[in-house]
Amino acid sequence: MISSFRRLTLAGLLLAAAPVAAQTAPATDSLAIRRLYDEALMRGQSYENLRELCTKIGGRLSGSPQAEQAVQWGKKEMEKMGLDRVYLQEVMVPHWVRGAKEKGRATGAKGKGLDFNVCALGGSVGTGGKLKAQIVEVHSMAELAALPADKVKGKFVFFNRPMNPVHVETGRAYGEAGDQRRSGASEAAKRGAIGALVRSLTLTHDDYPHTGTMRYDEAVAKVPAAALSTNGADQLSQLLKADPNLQFELDMSCQTLPDVKSYNVVGELKGSKYPDEIITVGGHLDSWDLAQGAHDDGTGCVQSMEVLRLLKASGLKPERTVRAVLFMNEENGVRGGEKYAELAKAANEKHLAAMESDGGGFTPRGFNIEADAATVRKVQQWQPLLRPYGSAEFNAGHAGTDIGPLKTQAKALIGFDCDSQRYFDLHHAATDTFDKVNRRELELGGASMAALVYLMSKYGL
Amino acid sequence: MISSFRRLTLAGLLLAAAPVAAQTAPATDSLAIRRLYDEALMRGQSYENLRELCTKIGGRLSGSPQAEQAVQWGKKEMEKMGLDRVYLQEVMVPHWVRGAKEKGRATGAKGKGLDFNVCALGGSVGTGGKLKAQIVEVHSMAELAALPADKVKGKFVFFNRPMNPVHVETGRAYGEAGDQRRSGASEAAKRGAIGALVRSLTLTHDDYPHTGTMRYDEAVAKVPAAALSTNGADQLSQLLKADPNLQFELDMSCQTLPDVKSYNVVGELKGSKYPDEIITVGGHLDSWDLAQGAHDDGTGCVQSMEVLRLLKASGLKPERTVRAVLFMNEENGVRGGEKYAELAKAANEKHLAAMESDGGGFTPRGFNIEADAATVRKVQQWQPLLRPYGSAEFNAGHAGTDIGPLKTQAKALIGFDCDSQRYFDLHHAATDTFDKVNRRELELGGASMAALVYLMSKYGL
Repeated sequence: MISSFRRLTLAGLLLAAAPVAAQTAPATDSLAIRRLYDEALMRGQSYENLRELCTKIGGRLSGSPQAEQAVQWGKKEMEKMGLDRVYLQEVMVPHWVRGAKEKGRATGAKGKGLDFNVCALGGSVGTGGKLKAQIVEVHSMAELAALPADKVKGKFVFFNRPMNPVHVETGRAYGEAGDQRRSGASEAAKRGAIGALVRSLTLTHDDYPHTGTMRYDEAVAKVPAAALSTNGADQLSQLLKADPNLQFELDMSCQTLPDVKSYNVVGELKGSKYPDEIITVGGHLDSWDLAQGAHDDGTGCVQSMEVLRLLKASGLKPERTVRAVLFMNEENGVRGGEKYAELAKAANEKHLAAMESDGGGFTPRGFNIEADAATVRKVQQWQPLLRPYGSAEFNAGHAGTDIGPLKTQAKALIGFDCDSQRYFDLHHAATDTFDKVNRRELELGGASMAALVYLMSKYGL
Repeated sequence: MISSFRRLTLAGLLLAAAPVAAQTAPATDSLAIRRLYDEALMRGQSYENLRELCTKIGGRLSGSPQAEQAVQWGKKEMEKMGLDRVYLQEVMVPHWVRGAKEKGRATGAKGKGLDFNVCALGGSVGTGGKLKAQIVEVHSMAELAALPADKVKGKFVFFNRPMNPVHVETGRAYGEAGDQRRSGASEAAKRGAIGALVRSLTLTHDDYPHTGTMRYDEAVAKVPAAALSTNGADQLSQLLKADPNLQFELDMSCQTLPDVKSYNVVGELKGSKYPDEIITVGGHLDSWDLAQGAHDDGTGCVQSMEVLRLLKASGLKPERTVRAVLFMNEENGVRGGEKYAELAKAANEKHLAAMESDGGGFTPRGFNIEADAATVRKVQQWQPLLRPYGSAEFNAGHAGTDIGPLKTQAKALIGFDCDSQRYFDLHHAATDTFDKVNRRELELGGASMAALVYLMSKYGL
């Protein structure tokens, strides 16, 4: 490709012109937003913060020593930023550990075996030694329910429905296929199965199993559940066609330990005019243990911290209070999000809006707004200001998990929306590492979040 | 991230619903487009075609044996598709070769040396053995012009202006910084310099030099020009601050050989109602030699071929003729694009529109339309049909290099517009390899191109 000027309207040219020097006099909104983007793109800190979180601390499952390190790291970094207030919110979190043993093996009638990459789903019980049984493959809960009892009893149920590739928004396909992972084990146990094997929730074809949370129905026996990679699931399905009596041997030493004390990390810039009106912006500090938790959700954490830094560095003192929150335990409990809402309610805080970034650090597309129709329209009035930055898709929609508990307290919940194509390739798998994050995509996300936070802090809702 | 339904309007839900079975009865436009996307996302061929082009053939600079292999490959693949017509268009192309030697080394006063990763710019003359001289660093042509003659004469001019990171659209920053690479050598020669060293045109910081075309002003001596990586340029700048008398030794054996016969590859689906009205869709088959030419522009080639396949496989017989063109020699001559327009004119062909994909195989954003205002508005009327697919940014703007020569012959030139954040990280460098292409991003691009081609083939312009 040789050439250049693409997608540039006149407005875009005017707005995107030269870097704007920091000013103390009031600026127009478009110039203020340009200033936030310039700061992010020229002197952004989020990428180096993410590098440290991912490569120095790494995976940080709730209750782990790494999660504790991440709390201390987040506190220290926000203290360095010279905010008005940095503090921790204590919260008890689940403490599930993977354990040293995690093996899967298929053996045919002739005793020939084949190893499979498996990983325990988060929250699964262990196998208590080697667990060996035949396999029954299904593609839906309805198919499982329709099977005769003797086809399921004493076997592993193998849930092998792929994510649907035709949805442009990959989160939709994830939601549709998620029942297998979330409730597959208990649904299998209800029919007398001794365990569940679940196809990984990803649209890519590779050899990495993807973990993720699952829940037990307390009314039935707790049976272990493991994920297979998509390649592994395809292979196992083929083997079963050739030999339906194939046995699978699962050996996992995961277990749930007693709850552990942990923390949300909160940093705050006090509002200059309306300090009691609060805008929260956050991501979750915990991650799964298999990788570095880069896109899920290191990026949301460093972007939220960056929102405060961008406002400060650009000299845009917010009129309302802006808080960055690094939530603990989104992945397997949402205890941090619940605690934050509980404490806000107890303190009778007035929450104007809460924003969350938990879809990866990819190129921004816009925001999903969860609010009454009038408030949605109010937020949508600012779309034109974000259009030159390609982040102008403002739609009504689900905002996020950690801010969900604030729903009755905040006027609007807002989900940062970014490109979703690559997210599930690495989501909850060993591949979710720092090198998968593009610096500019990450920085543009933080800048677009800062822009909307700035507008809300100036005009209210 | 746990949850799901994002950016889904009611319209999106209805349109994005279940895969639509192929029908022969007329379908509404939205259903036809859904069918194209389903085909691309469920049974797409573009990714495997790209794998073959990139990993079996690899880099394919005009005039190289690999370029010839790529021509034969493109012809063979399109012949397999059962099109109405597949043919080659002969065109003479430049034949520049990098040669075996390509070395750069800085040596200080004390004789200590440091090697630099360099690559010749495309079209550069060789050094004719080792060329050693002092360096003068500049950041613009104006700065070069203002230097006293004795500061430049007999030296290398080191052009070290970075791409401007504040432009959201990275192509704009590329355009602004491009004068250094395109005309740096001749501007340096005009002031008596013996060569040019140019900072790579990329927004990333790494050790890979990026090549790209340059042109000589025939009025001055031809001096060699090489790119340094961005890290290398930063390092050389530091070294020069410590020791302004530093010498640089460049050794490059590149040269320009006589022109070579090559080809555009053309595949065609005849229009059922208006066979004489032609819609062209293309990418360029040649690439630089340092890598596999994946995003530049293998993706545009396989997407253009996929447009024909999607129309055919979805049973959407176009009413106007649709041609996929794999242009030869975009990178260092645009001879294929010029030849295509010349032959179209000579045959008195009626070109309705020409579309080009040459900005990488990233997530689609929309299209840039180069046409009179009424035609731009006509194309923009179809925006809502592409909105559920996130490809609805239809703006007036520059369309593309290979279709440029058709400007006076076609009613509209249309550039496929996709996410630009990662493109220049790998553009013209050794990193532009198949593994950098995401399957779904590529497939969504081909589908959005097919959708707009379908609408134009049905309604005209």
